Amino acid sequence: MSDRFDPAPAATQPAASIVVPVILSGGSGSRLWPVSRASFPKQLWPLVSDRTMLQETALRGVGAGFAPPMVVCNHEHRFLIAEQLRAAGIEEARIVLEPVGRNSAPAIAAAALLVAETNPGAVLWVMAADAAIARTDALAQSLSLAVSAAGDGKLVLFGMKPTRPETGYGYIEVGAPLPGQDGVHAVAAFAEKPNDARARELLQTGRHLWNSGMFVATAATLIEELRLHAPEVLAATERAVGHRGTDLDFIRLDPASFAAAPDISIDYAVAERTAHAAVVPADLGWSDVGSWDALWDISAKDADGNVAIGDVFLEHTSDCYVRSDGIVTAVTGLQDAIVVVTDDAVLVTHRHQAQDVKKVVERLRAAGRHEAVAHNRSYRPWGFTEGLIEGERFQVKRIVVKPGERLSLQRHFHRAEHWVVVAGVALVTREGEQILVRENESVYLPLGCVHRLENPGRIPLTLIEVQSGSYLGEDDIVRLDEPASN
Amino acid sequence: MSDRFDPAPAATQPAASIVVPVILSGGSGSRLWPVSRASFPKQLWPLVSDRTMLQETALRGVGAGFAPPMVVCNHEHRFLIAEQLRAAGIEEARIVLEPVGRNSAPAIAAAALLVAETNPGAVLWVMAADAAIARTDALAQSLSLAVSAAGDGKLVLFGMKPTRPETGYGYIEVGAPLPGQDGVHAVAAFAEKPNDARARELLQTGRHLWNSGMFVATAATLIEELRLHAPEVLAATERAVGHRGTDLDFIRLDPASFAAAPDISIDYAVAERTAHAAVVPADLGWSDVGSWDALWDISAKDADGNVAIGDVFLEHTSDCYVRSDGIVTAVTGLQDAIVVVTDDAVLVTHRHQAQDVKKVVERLRAAGRHEAVAHNRSYRPWGFTEGLIEGERFQVKRIVVKPGERLSLQRHFHRAEHWVVVAGVALVTREGEQILVRENESVYLPLGCVHRLENPGRIPLTLIEVQSGSYLGEDDIVRLDEPASN
Repeated sequence: MSDRFDPAPAATQPAASIVVPVILSGGSGSRLWPVSRASFPKQLWPLVSDRTMLQETALRGVGAGFAPPMVVCNHEHRFLIAEQLRAAGIEEARIVLEPVGRNSAPAIAAAALLVAETNPGAVLWVMAADAAIARTDALAQSLSLAVSAAGDGKLVLFGMKPTRPETGYGYIEVGAPLPGQDGVHAVAAFAEKPNDARARELLQTGRHLWNSGMFVATAATLIEELRLHAPEVLAATERAVGHRGTDLDFIRLDPASFAAAPDISIDYAVAERTAHAAVVPADLGWSDVGSWDALWDISAKDADGNVAIGDVFLEHTSDCYVRSDGIVTAVTGLQDAIVVVTDDAVLVTHRHQAQDVKKVVERLRAAGRHEAVAHNRSYRPWGFTEGLIEGERFQVKRIVVKPGERLSLQRHFHRAEHWVVVAGVALVTREGEQILVRENESVYLPLGCVHRLENPGRIPLTLIEVQSGSYLGEDDIVRLDEPASN
Repeated sequence: MSDRFDPAPAATQPAASIVVPVILSGGSGSRLWPVSRASFPKQLWPLVSDRTMLQETALRGVGAGFAPPMVVCNHEHRFLIAEQLRAAGIEEARIVLEPVGRNSAPAIAAAALLVAETNPGAVLWVMAADAAIARTDALAQSLSLAVSAAGDGKLVLFGMKPTRPETGYGYIEVGAPLPGQDGVHAVAAFAEKPNDARARELLQTGRHLWNSGMFVATAATLIEELRLHAPEVLAATERAVGHRGTDLDFIRLDPASFAAAPDISIDYAVAERTAHAAVVPADLGWSDVGSWDALWDISAKDADGNVAIGDVFLEHTSDCYVRSDGIVTAVTGLQDAIVVVTDDAVLVTHRHQAQDVKKVVERLRAAGRHEAVAHNRSYRPWGFTEGLIEGERFQVKRIVVKPGERLSLQRHFHRAEHWVVVAGVALVTREGEQILVRENESVYLPLGCVHRLENPGRIPLTLIEVQSGSYLGEDDIVRLDEPASN
């Protein structure tokens, strides 16, 4: 496994044209709650297609001329991201872990510094992990124009043709065409997120484009512009990259150094200050999928304008987004509504109020509700656990362990556990003894005993864990080794 | 237990004034899905108050002058009803089981015949188990007037003052006052459920009242009127009562005889044909709670007109009914909506389309979905079972057994079971051996073994059952005795 995420040797591709997709996976997507939560945010869900948004994003940058992608992400998402890339057939990738969130400028600076170590002339294609692009042919064309200008020292933004008076995005005013760079323009000005009236004006001018946040520049250009306009960002990330560690297949930025970087976006830090900004006007069917309404907007609909996903029954309903990831959900007599059901939460909102979902999540968080940030199912490198029921002095979980994986050697001081294997086979270590537990067999782990769970088989192991005890918190665990972080 | 539901000896109360509450618990309340389902319909839920609707109904008929109630119900609900009455402090009741549903006339005929066996002059106060009455003081007054007229040979309906042009009820046109019966009028005419325009007219006349379905008459009057106007109903129910059985504390009408009774309402069979119909106009705050909208209508609301029950967060929401019996439910930006969440289904509807819920239930039923008719939790006389998860070749249930109760001796041919006790103590019989299983202990029941579960303790027994096998249907069970119907 150890070489799976090593960088591709730069020498194998022509240095001038190589494009490194840099995927920023920083957001928590709280406006897409209850599916998207901080511990498993929207880019990791299959919201727009059968693939997750991260997978869709990464697959846009596969093929001739592309280096393996670099993903900059929250360290808590590392295993999910590694697994999703592998599942999408992307065997090589560099996953850069942010010890804390510091907005986009430090994340991009780190990516540029890492790429520059082997190829300062490589072009970084910086993009969010959670945007949708419908017209990939147009994307390829725009990218080609942008990469060419990037080779000329430009920082080239993608300006999306606006389709509505959107107040949630910044705008780019298109300037004169760049001589010798077909399809690439100077940036006349940046406009902040407008109010409603101003957004209507901007929509009319024909010169204002949405700032998608996606851009290209060489590593060298980016580093030089950071040096000029955001030297504190560059200095802190240079230290964070210089003192980086590797953790399994991941690049872990030095926590103290990275934490010292200013919390600032690349727009404020560089794009709006540089003399080398350029823009490629594009019409890519781009969406930031920033709300359930935005997702309804880009999804395929039935004759009544409904998007219905999962176990859903509709009656006299139109222009609705109805999604159930679990239990049966019936909607009657509604228009312009959003209904989202997960196994532990339900959201119902008007499409035009879909931004308010963020407020709900804030209220839930303030109330200390775990549903605000985490799912009932908790993914680990070795598989997942899922809570089934919690009682007075007991709880029941489903535990699924992938073939060949094992958990840490551990003990609990406040609970005993019964494990019943219902699929596959478990190798259980209990106080030094090794016990093979087959389907329909069980094993008892008394309070305080040292134990380990392992799947020695070729198919996933599923077991039902019944915990009994006076305290059943996840923190009642002593790990006696650390084979993987679980 | 055997005398708990015996009739009160008629001799202990003055025969002339005795009132027997006859509670009809026949409906399945599908318009209040997903809370109300055929196996556990709306009258058995605490929808209007902390008590179930059946309990509220039964408690209206407790006190001086009332005999113990008689409940006529679907035999599948008998344990639930017995338990709810006991929980409400009603220790004496006669529970009459309908082997099949035959509408209200045969049910009421059976009640009249049973009462007439000991006291033909007793007044039957016939009412649905699933209506709400806000003004109980006004009810007592109206009832007193009606009982007096019933003693005079009248069949006295309660006509409710209409508050809206309702198309879902039949109407009674009030005639002249009955001489010597203060507050009681002749019935001028019955009006069928009107269309919208006609309903508006009826609302204006001041002479038309809603037919609530509630009425009083002596057993003798009812039997005589049945003999005159519905002799086939009377003949069939006479046989069904004559050949009745007793099953534990229940009166079980003879299935073949009762099934032969015509399927007809008491309105069509008797009330609209008799020469002795009368009506007490009343303003009782009556509601048939026929839909979620009707329930919203009679429920206490917050300043925004919302009814919020359970784990519910509202934001910019008004005039909504939001209820969660389980997972957290957030509603934003909605008006006039109904959101109802149970542990296995979600309903979202516009208040004004709340009648369509019935259509949803019909579609679910047509699709063979168990959610249409039954809940995840299945109540038995000894406790309940609740499905937690179903997998490929396994399922997990929570089983709760009341103190002192036991299940039948049984075996399964396609599944083995692991039982883990998480609260209380279990006495398990396995192939003749008796095993005491304490909290945090488990027992294994191999495929085919003869076993029984019993709670010998003083607190409820909770166990987690993990079933493994190739077929996990409820019908893989051979009962080797029948201590109670489970």
